[in-house]
Amino acid sequence: MSGEFIGERAGPMAFRELTPVTFLERAAAVFAARPAVRSGDRLFTYAEFWDRAQRLAGVLAARGVSPGDRVAVLAPNTHVLLEAHYGVPLAGAVLVALNTRLAPQEIRYILEHSGASVLIVDASLDAVADEALAGEHPPLDRIGTGDYERLLSEAEPHRVPVTDERSLLSINYTSGTTGRPKGVMYHHRGAYLQALAMALHAGLTPESTYLWTLPMFHTNGWCFPWAVTAAGAVHRCLPKPDPAEIWKAIREEGVTHFCAAPTVLAMLADHPDAGPATTERPVKVFAGGAPPWPSLLRRMTALGIDIQHLYGLTETFGPAVVSIWQPEWNTLPEEERAALMARQGVANVIAEPLRVVGPDGRDVPADGTSMGEILLRGNDVMLGYYRDEAATLAAAHDDWFRTGDVGVLHPDGYVEIRDRIKDVIISGGENIASVEVEAALTAHPDVLEAAVVGVRHPKWQEVPVAYVTPRAGADVTEAELIAFVRDRLAHFKAPRRIVLADLPKTSTGKIQKNMLRERASSLADDLGES
Amino acid sequence: MSGEFIGERAGPMAFRELTPVTFLERAAAVFAARPAVRSGDRLFTYAEFWDRAQRLAGVLAARGVSPGDRVAVLAPNTHVLLEAHYGVPLAGAVLVALNTRLAPQEIRYILEHSGASVLIVDASLDAVADEALAGEHPPLDRIGTGDYERLLSEAEPHRVPVTDERSLLSINYTSGTTGRPKGVMYHHRGAYLQALAMALHAGLTPESTYLWTLPMFHTNGWCFPWAVTAAGAVHRCLPKPDPAEIWKAIREEGVTHFCAAPTVLAMLADHPDAGPATTERPVKVFAGGAPPWPSLLRRMTALGIDIQHLYGLTETFGPAVVSIWQPEWNTLPEEERAALMARQGVANVIAEPLRVVGPDGRDVPADGTSMGEILLRGNDVMLGYYRDEAATLAAAHDDWFRTGDVGVLHPDGYVEIRDRIKDVIISGGENIASVEVEAALTAHPDVLEAAVVGVRHPKWQEVPVAYVTPRAGADVTEAELIAFVRDRLAHFKAPRRIVLADLPKTSTGKIQKNMLRERASSLADDLGES
Repeated sequence: MSGEFIGERAGPMAFRELTPVTFLERAAAVFAARPAVRSGDRLFTYAEFWDRAQRLAGVLAARGVSPGDRVAVLAPNTHVLLEAHYGVPLAGAVLVALNTRLAPQEIRYILEHSGASVLIVDASLDAVADEALAGEHPPLDRIGTGDYERLLSEAEPHRVPVTDERSLLSINYTSGTTGRPKGVMYHHRGAYLQALAMALHAGLTPESTYLWTLPMFHTNGWCFPWAVTAAGAVHRCLPKPDPAEIWKAIREEGVTHFCAAPTVLAMLADHPDAGPATTERPVKVFAGGAPPWPSLLRRMTALGIDIQHLYGLTETFGPAVVSIWQPEWNTLPEEERAALMARQGVANVIAEPLRVVGPDGRDVPADGTSMGEILLRGNDVMLGYYRDEAATLAAAHDDWFRTGDVGVLHPDGYVEIRDRIKDVIISGGENIASVEVEAALTAHPDVLEAAVVGVRHPKWQEVPVAYVTPRAGADVTEAELIAFVRDRLAHFKAPRRIVLADLPKTSTGKIQKNMLRERASSLADDLGES
Repeated sequence: MSGEFIGERAGPMAFRELTPVTFLERAAAVFAARPAVRSGDRLFTYAEFWDRAQRLAGVLAARGVSPGDRVAVLAPNTHVLLEAHYGVPLAGAVLVALNTRLAPQEIRYILEHSGASVLIVDASLDAVADEALAGEHPPLDRIGTGDYERLLSEAEPHRVPVTDERSLLSINYTSGTTGRPKGVMYHHRGAYLQALAMALHAGLTPESTYLWTLPMFHTNGWCFPWAVTAAGAVHRCLPKPDPAEIWKAIREEGVTHFCAAPTVLAMLADHPDAGPATTERPVKVFAGGAPPWPSLLRRMTALGIDIQHLYGLTETFGPAVVSIWQPEWNTLPEEERAALMARQGVANVIAEPLRVVGPDGRDVPADGTSMGEILLRGNDVMLGYYRDEAATLAAAHDDWFRTGDVGVLHPDGYVEIRDRIKDVIISGGENIASVEVEAALTAHPDVLEAAVVGVRHPKWQEVPVAYVTPRAGADVTEAELIAFVRDRLAHFKAPRRIVLADLPKTSTGKIQKNMLRERASSLADDLGES
């Protein structure tokens, strides 16, 4: 039957390049007059949002930005950064959202490494930008937010079509605790699919209001700049994740969703303004980072906040793994529920089922105890590290992305992270997952946060040492906490020393264990020889 | 900067072919022990569903089915047809789900036209299959459901990877009111994206139970065989959409979602078992076909059923257009709400914004009155008609798919269908949308259903004639109904004659206007000359 028609030549009728830009194009048609963006005292409808994004593309094109050029933005969570998530790709350019908490020299490095030709700077960060650009540097067209409205109003709407859905959409520089930041390359197809997955898992609808607590410069806000728009929900911008502001927005503006690290949730739970949300249904929170602990979960439930734990990396467009709640678990005792929710979870709806691979390169059994590195693959994995093929190759293992996280696979298919590969403490030939010891410590009612690192030891190679932040007003001693852990874990896992102190953190709220390791090394001589 | 790494060579790490088969692969990993399929008194978990689908692929491969071969299934909404939605593509083959209400000679035509090499037949349809295959016909391997369990248990799990997401997944033959059925070709990519869109718009979650009232052989069940699985919800199979069975399932099995034509909803509303659903939240119903009328909407709301109107064609993987409810409309008076809900709506989240194009080939203004043909395009449009390039070309207009439906675009971007192109009545140079006259008729409390067709007329070219089914027990006259319409519409739009009768329907529940037109032509001589 050669030559018969089976659709091989079906043209554009049946095909459109996947790009998250189309979510805004559609929202502008479907939700034209609905509120899209609340930012400070400004409110934009979806028709306005789309018009502004196209005008931003016009501004960039008029200033000589060509397809493939990099456009950097240094701004907190305002409408400007949100508009850049559409306006920059509408110009055919590549968005580089800069972490506002970086030091000027780090920003300078990223600007140079990305080769950005334009930098848009929020007025509040002008001084940082000045310092980053002090002295000689490659030519860079700087746009201040003071000029932004005038430039938009003078510009013509502009749009460069996406001709390859696997082409570069944005570069997200990792906050790298060691070495230089690496530029994670996002493609249009991945951002489109990840946005759909986030909208579906979060249950975003046109009735939702999403509060921008998670920085948009962090992993492109887990693709929520696109997911919220796909659903036709409201973006409520929030330049600083201040707990009082968050509670106010929840109470007075009908916020239904936000994303946050457990440390932000802990701040919220302890804040004097904490009180039940007033929306009909619980506020849904996506929590990344460390697993939320039982007392935090209990407190948040009482406050009308429903936490969903998830896991991902900059390299995976944010949450590739979601701790999906199975309805059958509702009737379990609280502690079991908390233990189930603390697991990182399962592949999200568009992600490929994950693997956990042992040092021998084989998949570990799903027994809840065999540890291995978590591997991910699929449409929500980065193209690679920008201008760093060697690092890209090093991150891949047989076409799977190596997360650098060590975990176990439970019999029901849920993965639970035990530790970063480099944070595993090896003591007397036994592996100690620092996360496990930290969980034992935070189970103590007086402990707000804990971090455990390994310190070299003449007999055991390494022993664990803990840094603990007590809760405000708590009165707890090192000996008490060590005894508390020894009651719960094998004794060799209990910290040899516990230091009560504030914990150093990166700009995205991650505890900087490398700094703690340095500090702890000075304790090495005082740990005894047995 | 030639030769620098910007990810062009990123391999399979960042790419996976889109195919809805992966939704079941993932569900089997994520929801292994959860109920997946209830069919009669059988219950399969997601692990079992995945195993059975792979075994079905093994059965087919062992019988010589090669990638690209067509496998036909003649079955009502049972687990067998559901499993075929995965097992057939897992064998690399193309699913042809046959309409069980077709005449044997129509089934024979489709088997021959598709060149199916295997036919799976449900025992209840053996006699139909016998008749379809009577006499000489090309070789066909027939599998009866009586042998199905044994064959599955003896087979090895099998899987042919999808190597091109735009390749053929299934062929859905239209029930074509005129001419031979045409084979609409679905691609993996379109079904994957449409399934995500359906899951998102329906709000499917792992806590949902989807009742299979819509035939799976119709447009592959609007892609719900894949959408329900993507969400990890329960498929509740229902071989016949019997109202008593539907009410029972809603009350006793926690059904949260189903799809239905308004005629099925009308049957449900009038059924003696009708009573409020017992789930906490309203049951969500996707209603295709004719717009649900105000009295039906009111009745269904009282019964705890929340109707969402939508629109699509076999050629668009089902609902390409969804009548999204805007929260701002909640406070409008009931009649306005019903009028808004009666509109077909807006592009679904993965569909390209639709167009309405007048006879001059230009987009009509969005004024709610200018009529034009609705055009659709994008990833949820078919590859074309199988082995019919001429029909495929005829269905395209500048790379847009011509729906054959005439509608208007409202100022808020919502489309409202006025009529099928061929159902528009031209009377004295004026266009009369038969749908508008039908809506006026069904607004009468005694009218269950109405169909309006044109009849040739010496002076006006055509005049409208109506066929009306009164509600059970109603006592209404032709003159009364004509007066009722004249009170509401321009007088030239009122039917010249109204015949009280049951309406002929296709196997998918569509009113067969071509048959009514034939019947009505006999009235032509009695319509007078003025």
